[in-house]
Amino acid sequence: MGRYDLEYPKEAINTIKRENDRAVYALKTIHEIVNSCQILHVSFNTPSQPFPVILPMIGQMGSFERPSADIGDPLDLYLHGYVSSRIMNLGRGAEEGMPVCVAASHVDGLVLALSSFSHSYNYRSTVLFGHASLVNDEEERMYAMELITNSVVPDRWRHTRLPPTKAELQSTGILKVRIASGSAKIRTGGAHDERHDMENQDLQDKVWTGVVPVQQTMGEPVPSTYNRIDVPGYMSEFIKDFNTDNTQYALDVTKD
Amino acid sequence: MGRYDLEYPKEAINTIKRENDRAVYALKTIHEIVNSCQILHVSFNTPSQPFPVILPMIGQMGSFERPSADIGDPLDLYLHGYVSSRIMNLGRGAEEGMPVCVAASHVDGLVLALSSFSHSYNYRSTVLFGHASLVNDEEERMYAMELITNSVVPDRWRHTRLPPTKAELQSTGILKVRIASGSAKIRTGGAHDERHDMENQDLQDKVWTGVVPVQQTMGEPVPSTYNRIDVPGYMSEFIKDFNTDNTQYALDVTKD
Repeated sequence: MGRYDLEYPKEAINTIKRENDRAVYALKTIHEIVNSCQILHVSFNTPSQPFPVILPMIGQMGSFERPSADIGDPLDLYLHGYVSSRIMNLGRGAEEGMPVCVAASHVDGLVLALSSFSHSYNYRSTVLFGHASLVNDEEERMYAMELITNSVVPDRWRHTRLPPTKAELQSTGILKVRIASGSAKIRTGGAHDERHDMENQDLQDKVWTGVVPVQQTMGEPVPSTYNRIDVPGYMSEFIKDFNTDNTQYALDVTKD
Repeated sequence: MGRYDLEYPKEAINTIKRENDRAVYALKTIHEIVNSCQILHVSFNTPSQPFPVILPMIGQMGSFERPSADIGDPLDLYLHGYVSSRIMNLGRGAEEGMPVCVAASHVDGLVLALSSFSHSYNYRSTVLFGHASLVNDEEERMYAMELITNSVVPDRWRHTRLPPTKAELQSTGILKVRIASGSAKIRTGGAHDERHDMENQDLQDKVWTGVVPVQQTMGEPVPSTYNRIDVPGYMSEFIKDFNTDNTQYALDVTKD
């Protein structure tokens, strides 16, 4: 895009009121949080129950119409699931799309202050609202399956057995969420306390304050019983970058 | 409990149909997943929007009536939030409690197979359904605040400035979710493929298969600008155990 960062418009549903200095509406930031989350939490209502239902799902932002779209462009969310699952059946039945909420969250640190009530997390969290419907176009389904597989390990798709079998395609459902609205909330920085605690010398001599960085890391790959080859470069590069980047980010945000 | 493990009864809302060999209904397993999750995703409906809303929140299973209750006993879920937030206002208004769904998920590994469609995660995920209402009893509120603070770092509460100030208590809302139903889904083990792929020698010579362990880890604590003391033992013990246990679990489940 270059010139400016697109934002989701602030409306009743997505406007962050509490600690709104942590609020972000930029598509780029929101989409990056979604795409870096290994599990998304997808909420929807069913006709027969008073409770909303949350499903943990794998998903990824993308654009089938314009696959070269930037992460900060308007994108759709593709979700992957078993074809006969409840959410897929509801997505199939909903003409306008089923209203869903999708959440993606990372914990980046434990923020420990003098008072329990000034404790916090460093975190990146985002929520998207949209309408989910089942994708029927075979080409778009293939686009989404490749997108989602490559979100687990970049470049994995073309290193697996292709093309998919008929049975594989038949058992896999793809939901597309047209995004209606979204927002993110991000907390970075060190511990903070109220003045009356900061002036309490005894307290300061007693309580450790600061940030414990938290990050997801990957260990050494463990080969299957039938594996025959060494860990390929595209995998080891990814694991190394994943660990380095996550550790660095969690450390970077420990300071104001 | 000793003699047997209590289970949430299987009903329409919580019965897992897909891959039901991965389903778990034991309270102990479900509560342990919830209590080990740093962020819970809480879904609820609002009167004014077609979309369910998901909030990332901090929470913990416990029993105010019987604080010594075992993790496998019937427990309530306590959630912590800002007192004037939307969910707190809805919880205040709902006489019978507001219907909510709470999800807790851990990714434990990337399971990489010959076919993209046989890829999976090792994971532990759980979903609880229940009715949330605001806690008004001051003693129960204190119980929940201590419970939740100690879930971030065990034993932290009594190492911070106590008692809470009036302003702190007034600005903190506690929601209690009476659990109606729940289930968990757990995947462990190595990669698996269909026979036709296993018999494809060229494919096996080309595709790496196995599990990449994934775990949350904590880094070296970074002191605040005003911190004066060394990292205390209760913190360093916790961080060491957290890292060792998570790494070991992710590694243990890479094998069948």
